[in-house]
Amino acid sequence: MRQVPEVALPIVLDRTAGGSLPNQIAESIRHLTASGVLRAGEPVPSSRALARHLGVSRGTVIVAYDQLLAEGWLVAIAGSATSINPQLPRAWAAPPAVSARGASRPQEVPRIDLRPGRPLQDEVAGPSWRAAWRVAAAAPVGVSVPLLGWPGLRAAVVEHLRRLRGFNCEPDRVAVTAGGREGLSLLLHASGAKDVGVEDPGFPSLRRVLHRRNAIIRSLPTDDQGLVTTKLPETEPPEAVIVTPAHQYPFGGTLHIDRRLALLEWARRHGVLVIEDDYDSELRYASEPLPALASLDADQVALLGTFSKTLTPALATGFVVLPRHLVAAVEAVRGDLGQPVSLVTQRAVAEYLASGGLARHTQRMRRVYRRRRNQVVAALAGLTGVRVSPMDGGLHAVVQFDRDERSVIDALRMQGLAVASLGEYWASEPPGSQRGFVFGFGGVSDADLAEGLATIRATLGGRPSTIGRPASPHRAPGAAPDQPS
Amino acid sequence: MRQVPEVALPIVLDRTAGGSLPNQIAESIRHLTASGVLRAGEPVPSSRALARHLGVSRGTVIVAYDQLLAEGWLVAIAGSATSINPQLPRAWAAPPAVSARGASRPQEVPRIDLRPGRPLQDEVAGPSWRAAWRVAAAAPVGVSVPLLGWPGLRAAVVEHLRRLRGFNCEPDRVAVTAGGREGLSLLLHASGAKDVGVEDPGFPSLRRVLHRRNAIIRSLPTDDQGLVTTKLPETEPPEAVIVTPAHQYPFGGTLHIDRRLALLEWARRHGVLVIEDDYDSELRYASEPLPALASLDADQVALLGTFSKTLTPALATGFVVLPRHLVAAVEAVRGDLGQPVSLVTQRAVAEYLASGGLARHTQRMRRVYRRRRNQVVAALAGLTGVRVSPMDGGLHAVVQFDRDERSVIDALRMQGLAVASLGEYWASEPPGSQRGFVFGFGGVSDADLAEGLATIRATLGGRPSTIGRPASPHRAPGAAPDQPS
Repeated sequence: MRQVPEVALPIVLDRTAGGSLPNQIAESIRHLTASGVLRAGEPVPSSRALARHLGVSRGTVIVAYDQLLAEGWLVAIAGSATSINPQLPRAWAAPPAVSARGASRPQEVPRIDLRPGRPLQDEVAGPSWRAAWRVAAAAPVGVSVPLLGWPGLRAAVVEHLRRLRGFNCEPDRVAVTAGGREGLSLLLHASGAKDVGVEDPGFPSLRRVLHRRNAIIRSLPTDDQGLVTTKLPETEPPEAVIVTPAHQYPFGGTLHIDRRLALLEWARRHGVLVIEDDYDSELRYASEPLPALASLDADQVALLGTFSKTLTPALATGFVVLPRHLVAAVEAVRGDLGQPVSLVTQRAVAEYLASGGLARHTQRMRRVYRRRRNQVVAALAGLTGVRVSPMDGGLHAVVQFDRDERSVIDALRMQGLAVASLGEYWASEPPGSQRGFVFGFGGVSDADLAEGLATIRATLGGRPSTIGRPASPHRAPGAAPDQPS
Repeated sequence: MRQVPEVALPIVLDRTAGGSLPNQIAESIRHLTASGVLRAGEPVPSSRALARHLGVSRGTVIVAYDQLLAEGWLVAIAGSATSINPQLPRAWAAPPAVSARGASRPQEVPRIDLRPGRPLQDEVAGPSWRAAWRVAAAAPVGVSVPLLGWPGLRAAVVEHLRRLRGFNCEPDRVAVTAGGREGLSLLLHASGAKDVGVEDPGFPSLRRVLHRRNAIIRSLPTDDQGLVTTKLPETEPPEAVIVTPAHQYPFGGTLHIDRRLALLEWARRHGVLVIEDDYDSELRYASEPLPALASLDADQVALLGTFSKTLTPALATGFVVLPRHLVAAVEAVRGDLGQPVSLVTQRAVAEYLASGGLARHTQRMRRVYRRRRNQVVAALAGLTGVRVSPMDGGLHAVVQFDRDERSVIDALRMQGLAVASLGEYWASEPPGSQRGFVFGFGGVSDADLAEGLATIRATLGGRPSTIGRPASPHRAPGAAPDQPS
């Protein structure tokens, strides 16, 4: 009987009520069994333990158990604990049923999911990964952690940014987040910004965070080089802007240095917080990255980073490099709302970064993505009236055409293929020429990618053609037809 | 040279500018070195790799490197990679300095921290814990996870509630959260509640979440049995109420069954969401727990649970059992804002629960806490004019006295002891009799607890006394002097 866990049965004895204590105990156990809390076959607490738990004599419990044994609710088998009768009706023994809209409700899972944003994750859980978690799990947990996150991870992020982004920043400006969206929420909370400019087109997922926070969303126009800084509002500017200078989302244009300086000058003049979404920057494989905006201005720019793309969204871990004036406010938010990333996860990510695991993984993935990008260009070349713009160093491509966007996407879905609508990247009504879809080439197997590309090709127009505007695989990277930059 | 990581130097070549390409490369490397991005002693990319990265001929890079070698910026050592000269001034070689308000800014750490809310964590990182993380780290990460969380963890939470709380619920009502406060945020988001009733006194940390969300906070009166349901507002009721029926915080009163039914009847009548904060319930060691409110009404009550107290706050993991009508709304919030708990953490917690690790740990901790509770009662017995109310099964005690609250707490702080002000538990002005402090006896070592108790005793009044209202260690649990329940 030693191994039966300590008692935590919700039995309430009412010493002023009519029924005897043994009867009350027996009735409670009958009720708990019938309602499924105690299951057929499960041992009940020892009479000694239950007596202590209820504050009654052991004899009282023994009387109750004897009654239940006589009634067949309990069975006593020589050499093992007294248990709920395993022969009780199955209805009582079954665990709670998962209803039709159950725990793993199918959310219309496509056969091949080419929606953008997912990296290839097959090789993440390798030896370096397992070693990092082993180290993290062996460390003591009862340590005091600063509000911005575990210093070891923040130092590793600094080193990561230095090596992969050429960006030198102080660790006391780095805050650990649960990823890009949580980082954006944190910045909005800390800055109090309620009126936010976003690139149009831009990330729908970040706009959804703004919607959830009831922010006013202002569209900022972009062209093939990214944000058009001459059109930034000079009167009543927003409190914050979210920009993707490394490669504008989804078309991939890089913000030129003169626009970068103009944006920062404008932000300083109006006191606007610039939120630099540095997504995928570490994955560039086709050209030289420009320095992060945040490296040019430590007072006005917050850099939003995540390991969702370089590693896996399953990690739910990222970081923000804060402008100095927001450090105290972010600490206050974390103090009130808590740090969502477990210390074990923070240690494991730090260990994985410091061991070079992430650098090696990123290097492998760059090779895979470079190959896949070429595969995409080759597979979709020469389709009449179709422009294919693979991102310069990213994980997705944009396909544009002059047909009805919805009917093409629906046709793909009928064939088991999920892609994202290009129209949904606009906050405002997209220009007429902006019909098409966006698809990711990171998150699927080689075979699924090949099949997906064949399906897209067949759906968009059959035979290869040498007329029109072919997106040749031999063009320089970054110079796909609609991307003069 | 094979082991040098793939190049990610932020070098931008301008083919239209005056300087030759080798000169531009050399100047960029000088700049990166001087600014600390490249460090003394660090290898530079191979000429082949950098040439490929920049899209120039290998000869161009070799010319640049030769120039830098001649200038002494680089050194070439036979048999190893060309590197930044390790003799460069130390100023360039140093990693970014942590400023005075550094990464681990000391937040006035007390010598003995008896502020409530922290469990004893010394034994958490044991063999079961490490095994759970090992299993979790070996699992693939590229799997699709439902918006409410990994089904394995949600099933383990159901089993945990069944065994430790006698509460049977369906797994499709369980959502994984990053802890109690994140769970509350999630419920507020999903329900849209902006006008929330809280017990007075009550958890300051949950009130801070409401403040951060700009909610209207209404005080609900309590007495020694918890919420006074006869005083619930019948006109203009709040949209949600947060209650602690298992043991009211901080005094520990248990909400009687008639009040529970009255609360639920009131909530149903007015459509009020009841948020049941079930903190510490699994840790009860001194009396029978009443069933969770949520087990009485699956349509009106959300149960807020966390592993911060049963295990460690470092886990940043908890759960909510949702009323059925909120399931879809919570899924929508998670879809927009993301799941903050990493899949590895979710798997590890599930594994730890399923392996019985948490049940065994809880059992050990119950013994420790029961012993410590008796130690607290004994150590502080017989102080004139002082009432000590250790929680019935919790991790903290309330100390009340007729002296100035602030001066006592300050006197303790001068002796290196941190406790929480009882006055801060009130949203409104506390009644005059409610002066004192709250201290936790979970989170410190045996020696620190003994020293802390001696310090409290000495500060509150020196010699033991047999007059006044002694809190005898021989009284029944839960019947401390000011707690008639």
